[in-house]
Amino acid sequence: MRFWCEQALLPGGIAAGVALDVEAGRITRVTAAAEPGAATVLPGLTRPGFANAHSHAFHRALRGRTHDHGGTFWTWREQMYQVAATLTPESLFLLARATFAEMVLAGYTVVGEFHYLHHQPSGLPYADANAMGHALIRAAGEAGIRLTLLDTCYLAGGLDEHGHVALDTVQRRFSDDSATAWAERVAALSEGDLVRIGAAAHSVRAVPLADLREVADHAREHGWPLHLHLSEQPAENDAALAHYRRSPTALVADAAHDGFTAVHGTHLTEGDVDLLAASASIVCFCPSTEADLADGIGPARELLDAGVRLCLGSDQNAIIDPFAEVRGLEHHERLRSRQRGRFTPAELEGIASANGYAAVGWGDGGRIEPGALADLVSIDLRSVRTAGSAPEQVLLTASASDVTDVVVGGEHVVQAGRHRLGHVAALLTQALGGLR
Amino acid sequence: MRFWCEQALLPGGIAAGVALDVEAGRITRVTAAAEPGAATVLPGLTRPGFANAHSHAFHRALRGRTHDHGGTFWTWREQMYQVAATLTPESLFLLARATFAEMVLAGYTVVGEFHYLHHQPSGLPYADANAMGHALIRAAGEAGIRLTLLDTCYLAGGLDEHGHVALDTVQRRFSDDSATAWAERVAALSEGDLVRIGAAAHSVRAVPLADLREVADHAREHGWPLHLHLSEQPAENDAALAHYRRSPTALVADAAHDGFTAVHGTHLTEGDVDLLAASASIVCFCPSTEADLADGIGPARELLDAGVRLCLGSDQNAIIDPFAEVRGLEHHERLRSRQRGRFTPAELEGIASANGYAAVGWGDGGRIEPGALADLVSIDLRSVRTAGSAPEQVLLTASASDVTDVVVGGEHVVQAGRHRLGHVAALLTQALGGLR
Repeated sequence: MRFWCEQALLPGGIAAGVALDVEAGRITRVTAAAEPGAATVLPGLTRPGFANAHSHAFHRALRGRTHDHGGTFWTWREQMYQVAATLTPESLFLLARATFAEMVLAGYTVVGEFHYLHHQPSGLPYADANAMGHALIRAAGEAGIRLTLLDTCYLAGGLDEHGHVALDTVQRRFSDDSATAWAERVAALSEGDLVRIGAAAHSVRAVPLADLREVADHAREHGWPLHLHLSEQPAENDAALAHYRRSPTALVADAAHDGFTAVHGTHLTEGDVDLLAASASIVCFCPSTEADLADGIGPARELLDAGVRLCLGSDQNAIIDPFAEVRGLEHHERLRSRQRGRFTPAELEGIASANGYAAVGWGDGGRIEPGALADLVSIDLRSVRTAGSAPEQVLLTASASDVTDVVVGGEHVVQAGRHRLGHVAALLTQALGGLR
Repeated sequence: MRFWCEQALLPGGIAAGVALDVEAGRITRVTAAAEPGAATVLPGLTRPGFANAHSHAFHRALRGRTHDHGGTFWTWREQMYQVAATLTPESLFLLARATFAEMVLAGYTVVGEFHYLHHQPSGLPYADANAMGHALIRAAGEAGIRLTLLDTCYLAGGLDEHGHVALDTVQRRFSDDSATAWAERVAALSEGDLVRIGAAAHSVRAVPLADLREVADHAREHGWPLHLHLSEQPAENDAALAHYRRSPTALVADAAHDGFTAVHGTHLTEGDVDLLAASASIVCFCPSTEADLADGIGPARELLDAGVRLCLGSDQNAIIDPFAEVRGLEHHERLRSRQRGRFTPAELEGIASANGYAAVGWGDGGRIEPGALADLVSIDLRSVRTAGSAPEQVLLTASASDVTDVVVGGEHVVQAGRHRLGHVAALLTQALGGLR
């Protein structure tokens, strides 16, 4: 099949009248200055689809529900646990399908779902021990988004100076009891055309060091990406330093010497940036969450300058808008540095797409070139928001509402602002209503 | 005429099935639990229209054009001056009409236009000395937004330790040469049903202290609001302290003892918060601009705790989205304090509407109650963004795209997402295209 882009962002810059031939979900040929002919027209600016490298789909249930009593990250977590306690494979499927569809409408074409909601509330496995993971895979399939299921090892209730503490009541459903049991369960998951499996360890708070090594070894053996939450809150640093006399980054870099994706990296301590660079790691910033949860602002520019790749995630899905994440990253940098243009438009393009694809194990995505995954997003350049913008700067001026078309693996999932599932807001309303 | 709101935010909270009778642009009666009957239905949540207390409409031309070469506030200003140098009454009219229409689509029902682009590029007056101000008044009328024209006194090119410096080439068109001449020109402006006049002094950089006193006295005599840019950048503080041995706030509080609206207040120095509270002043935060221009984060919560009212402005119009400004205010506070919920939902409602109305001289706006201005905005509670939110928290989850209906002075300017002028994006494209 053939798509024709009014304008397209190619590795060398923006070109007009670009024909893209697609076979078996990949771009096979790119022809600039082509005629549209009988091709499917993609209006506006077509760029590689956005990568959402860090999501917890079920947190979507908390949107607009946690702003009335102040608090901190930790009090928010209590509210999140209340939702986590109630979900079933069926309600998770409905919520994730609607949330993933919201992501595709917003221009995300791949999601790294950081999944730790494994078992029954009692902690016992479902009859299918991967019932929850399978619900997410089915949800992504119906929503038309490429998925890396980052199946997460979660073993402990927290960390203090004396070591890891026991799981609390809600956390029991997160735990496989050991990294070995985690690996056995994960072995029963299957990949597909639009689905890959990846490994995650929740954090150094939730995974003791020996288990962390086991998870990292397992990921390396399988060629899977490895993700962890890292230094989102100073309390994690304090606990790691108190118990291990090392920063969370130092612990993980030691366990996972092949590189990993560190989510947040907000409160990196001295030396952590160099360790991340030396291990060829990627850091996933989640600006809307880091603001909403009052995490703080991480050292994004310093990481990039040290050679660390950055990518982005919507995390708790308080907002699902890749433009808001890009703008958040740049704005947070401006606020702390008092300088404008902390990232060039080209750097932001890579952060929004190719780096995220690499982080979730699809190294052949996030670019429009022969051989790459046919994952595309088209942006209206003549909306009230984008009118007048240089196309090269539209990442900083558009919003999710300006996405007109989305193609995932060659499938035209969103056409003229309409998702193939129909009324996504109604799916969200239905899924969320079912939880209350 | 009568509107019927599916839900409405009243001073006592959200009520269902609220009928609003409107005469001569004001709400005359509010009836909860009413039947819709033959009334015009406003779907979703109807709340008081958003107040945009600080705008420079012409900066809209810079959106998506200034992100490619780093820089600071001061280098951005050079780019802004390039646009300022070229505008005519006709091109300003076209640009402002489209920009004001974009504001109404986004839910703003009143704008305080901080206007200093008075004269021909040579500095000589137009045949109508208020040709540019009249262009803005005409633009607001066609766009259907309530306007306070904050006509701005601008006399000097800057401030250093030795005093004020001469105007540069571009700045000549900003200047009336003296506060007395400014007052004479402004006297020829007329108010109307949807138009008020207000006074502004650009800043302590651009207006020497004696002239500042004259502008403040003039505002007081006429019962006009008085606005100033205040401590947006540390360089302003440094210059004021070097030359006057006083902070910008101390200078203005002395000149304008009846209170004023300080725009930004990002870098307030010790004692400034108390001075602002003692003078019953209002501080207008412009979060999207303060992030975009790398200004920094002002002490919003400390101001509120001291008794200073806060309001919001879109300023350079890099974004026109009142929800993004509300979220920006709250997020910036969370980032600097590491606490969530820095403002209650009710505080944010007042900041977004009633306080802004008061700041621009319409003290009878920003509330849904008998006698108040009939300025309303309706928000879709079942969009992909808002589905599931508590209606009380929707300010933190919606976007401008979720505004369905806007009423200004009883006129139904936006219906089902459509502005009475038709295709606003095309008006923007036309106006911006004409400048290049």
